[in-house]
Amino acid sequence: MLRSTESRLLHKVIQAIKEDNKQVFETTIEELQPYDLAQLYVNFPVSDRNKYLSYLSLDQLAKLIQALTNKEQLEVLKALSVEKTSQVLERMDNDDLVSLLSSLEPDKIKKLLAGLKQEASDMIQNLMKYPPETAGRIMNNQFVWIYKSYTVREAVDKLKHFAELAEYLNYLYVIDDRKRLVGVVSYRDLLLADLFEKIEDIMKTRVVHVDAWMDQEKVAQLIQRYEFVTMPVVKEDQTLLGVVTVDDIIDVVYQEANEDIEKLSASGKAIDFTTKPLVAASRRLTWLILLLFIGIVSGSIIASFEETLDQVVALAFFMPMIAGMTGNTGTQSLAVVVRGLTTNDLGWKQVIKLIIRELWVGIIIGVACGILIFIIALIWQGSATLGFVIGISLLCTLIIGTLAGTIIPLILYRLNIDPAVASGPLITTINDILSLLIYFGIATLFISKLM
Amino acid sequence: MLRSTESRLLHKVIQAIKEDNKQVFETTIEELQPYDLAQLYVNFPVSDRNKYLSYLSLDQLAKLIQALTNKEQLEVLKALSVEKTSQVLERMDNDDLVSLLSSLEPDKIKKLLAGLKQEASDMIQNLMKYPPETAGRIMNNQFVWIYKSYTVREAVDKLKHFAELAEYLNYLYVIDDRKRLVGVVSYRDLLLADLFEKIEDIMKTRVVHVDAWMDQEKVAQLIQRYEFVTMPVVKEDQTLLGVVTVDDIIDVVYQEANEDIEKLSASGKAIDFTTKPLVAASRRLTWLILLLFIGIVSGSIIASFEETLDQVVALAFFMPMIAGMTGNTGTQSLAVVVRGLTTNDLGWKQVIKLIIRELWVGIIIGVACGILIFIIALIWQGSATLGFVIGISLLCTLIIGTLAGTIIPLILYRLNIDPAVASGPLITTINDILSLLIYFGIATLFISKLM
Repeated sequence: MLRSTESRLLHKVIQAIKEDNKQVFETTIEELQPYDLAQLYVNFPVSDRNKYLSYLSLDQLAKLIQALTNKEQLEVLKALSVEKTSQVLERMDNDDLVSLLSSLEPDKIKKLLAGLKQEASDMIQNLMKYPPETAGRIMNNQFVWIYKSYTVREAVDKLKHFAELAEYLNYLYVIDDRKRLVGVVSYRDLLLADLFEKIEDIMKTRVVHVDAWMDQEKVAQLIQRYEFVTMPVVKEDQTLLGVVTVDDIIDVVYQEANEDIEKLSASGKAIDFTTKPLVAASRRLTWLILLLFIGIVSGSIIASFEETLDQVVALAFFMPMIAGMTGNTGTQSLAVVVRGLTTNDLGWKQVIKLIIRELWVGIIIGVACGILIFIIALIWQGSATLGFVIGISLLCTLIIGTLAGTIIPLILYRLNIDPAVASGPLITTINDILSLLIYFGIATLFISKLM
Repeated sequence: MLRSTESRLLHKVIQAIKEDNKQVFETTIEELQPYDLAQLYVNFPVSDRNKYLSYLSLDQLAKLIQALTNKEQLEVLKALSVEKTSQVLERMDNDDLVSLLSSLEPDKIKKLLAGLKQEASDMIQNLMKYPPETAGRIMNNQFVWIYKSYTVREAVDKLKHFAELAEYLNYLYVIDDRKRLVGVVSYRDLLLADLFEKIEDIMKTRVVHVDAWMDQEKVAQLIQRYEFVTMPVVKEDQTLLGVVTVDDIIDVVYQEANEDIEKLSASGKAIDFTTKPLVAASRRLTWLILLLFIGIVSGSIIASFEETLDQVVALAFFMPMIAGMTGNTGTQSLAVVVRGLTTNDLGWKQVIKLIIRELWVGIIIGVACGILIFIIALIWQGSATLGFVIGISLLCTLIIGTLAGTIIPLILYRLNIDPAVASGPLITTINDILSLLIYFGIATLFISKLM
């Protein structure tokens, strides 16, 4: 889509509303996708937004809302009458509705649910029982199921009947009379089969599925590996509850990647372009204050070596370099481990292999950087002993920093703690403190030769 | 899937091969997905892998190869005869084949392509003309197109005929007699239409599509926004070339997130769990050596304030804290900007708003941390002047660090340089150097009162 086409479209729609020409309005937006409807709303002059909303049909409103951000959704709901709100909510995909409701106060949720039909309200409340970021929370019921006793003809009839409802038609899930998931039939299978064949004779009985309590990151991993567009979700007793669709999984992958980056950079949870300064600042402050105290611990280590430092001030010149390098090599290892874990399962064998690999990496970069800094220090400060002290310190801290960056996230992973959290405080603290201890420890050993 | 089911499956397959029982083997693997076939291969005892391969049909081999990592793919190809290799390659989806070939030497590519039918070889060579990470490079031809002059019946017939070939049946793309993309018909539309209606009368003429040269990250953004499972790809003259499918887009989102993290943590390009130590070390060394020299620059700034430092050694205690905090706040802002850009388009208005937001964030965290460190320094070192110098320094460096972390990636973005690259060297250098200059600058101003 060209930007110019978009602005031309916006112009046309504004014009139609100004002229109160409903027919032009309708033909203009007829073929638009939910995202386009949402973009129109966002770019509409604020004063005319309500008029734009009033021109849309209930179905179009439901689509529009699904493509908006949370803040904008609430804005739109405020502009709609109570009755219209209920009608629009009922037309939304249930996973989108759950995600909208999740952001509201319990009171407001109750009020909105009260407007819905009993059945719809019950279903939504059932979904909201699953914790956030699980398969149960992001699944929806926009899929077609069939009984295994159906014939192909019955299945095709049902499919036609629900074609408007179901988003993804690639697979039909097959259940038995107790609603347990027992098979899957692809659309192709139906097209190629004889109309009178039984579904249970043509279905595949091996169905890859997930439990409603499974973490969404794990579900994303499975959908990626199997290249599915929908993944069936079941209860403990194998009852089919819903499907997770690939469009939600793309959102999950973006979201989880952002969470990893947030944690790795300690940038604070969920700060985006529209977050208010005070909110963004307070989210980041948590980490910064922690880091401030870590900085004070480092400072007190330096203070405890005050005598050494006082005798050889030049040691201070190399302090930021050593601490910085150690922190950096730790973060490098951490990043490799954290991202590797998003797409790999790790057994003990691979863990050992990975640690040995990183040990070698640490030794190689330690030797290379150690020699380099020895030469630099020798030329700059004209002291081979100082160069030697700094070189050996860097070698040791780089090896230890690399190992800490590898082992700590792996331990957390085994303990079922998100390893990305490890970055901010743990790795930084440990590497900062260890590097200063090693550096000043070695320097103090050689102090008589340094002076 | 339970792990125990997987190992039972593996056991059964190994047993069948040992007993040379082809029938048991075939019924056991009949319903497996490509990923399952690949997992069996990977977990198979190395000595029996070739036997496993020899039991698979050509179609199964093609599926298996598509789900393997690049290294494993080459291993499998080595084990197959020249003739079988060609037959398997011809059965692969063309996007997977392109990605396999991309990793090979030109000589080897030529050799493999020579074994294919002329038509297949031409098509693959055409796809490989597009640069890596563009829509043209990741698109495939597993889709069904129809002429706009078709009737619904003709479209359904064609669909049935190609049902086995096409992965995603949700949409049929409509072309005119010059092969230009002119519309789209959903599968539901076909099901609900009368068999004698013309396609051009029921199709939607507004088709969201992408150019073959579009960056894959941009394509992913569009697929996420529109919640599509396939996105049609066209040439400059609107000729339909292929489709990008959502399974490839999930891989793209993972890959792009990893690239962002690699750059933000300066962890070096494409290091995963299987990278050899020497390769991983050399990829990371590039950044580390750069950082080492940056460390030396910082060191020489400290050296130029040697006199100040010599007079008040306590200044050294707070050095790591100030440099660390500034670096950290810069990285925090950078992470927010870099990830925000993956899902948002930015106009000038938003840029200004974002910079002002970050300025406020910098002021708030600067004031908070400044006051805190003043109190700590006062208690620890018993000097209000020292506390004041450190507090003011931290306030200034935090504001500047935050702004640098925001403005630099935005400038790079405007210059069409990937802003994630900014992290490693640029932000760290600038923030390290600025923070030390400010700190020692302020300290030198107050030196007479500090002693």
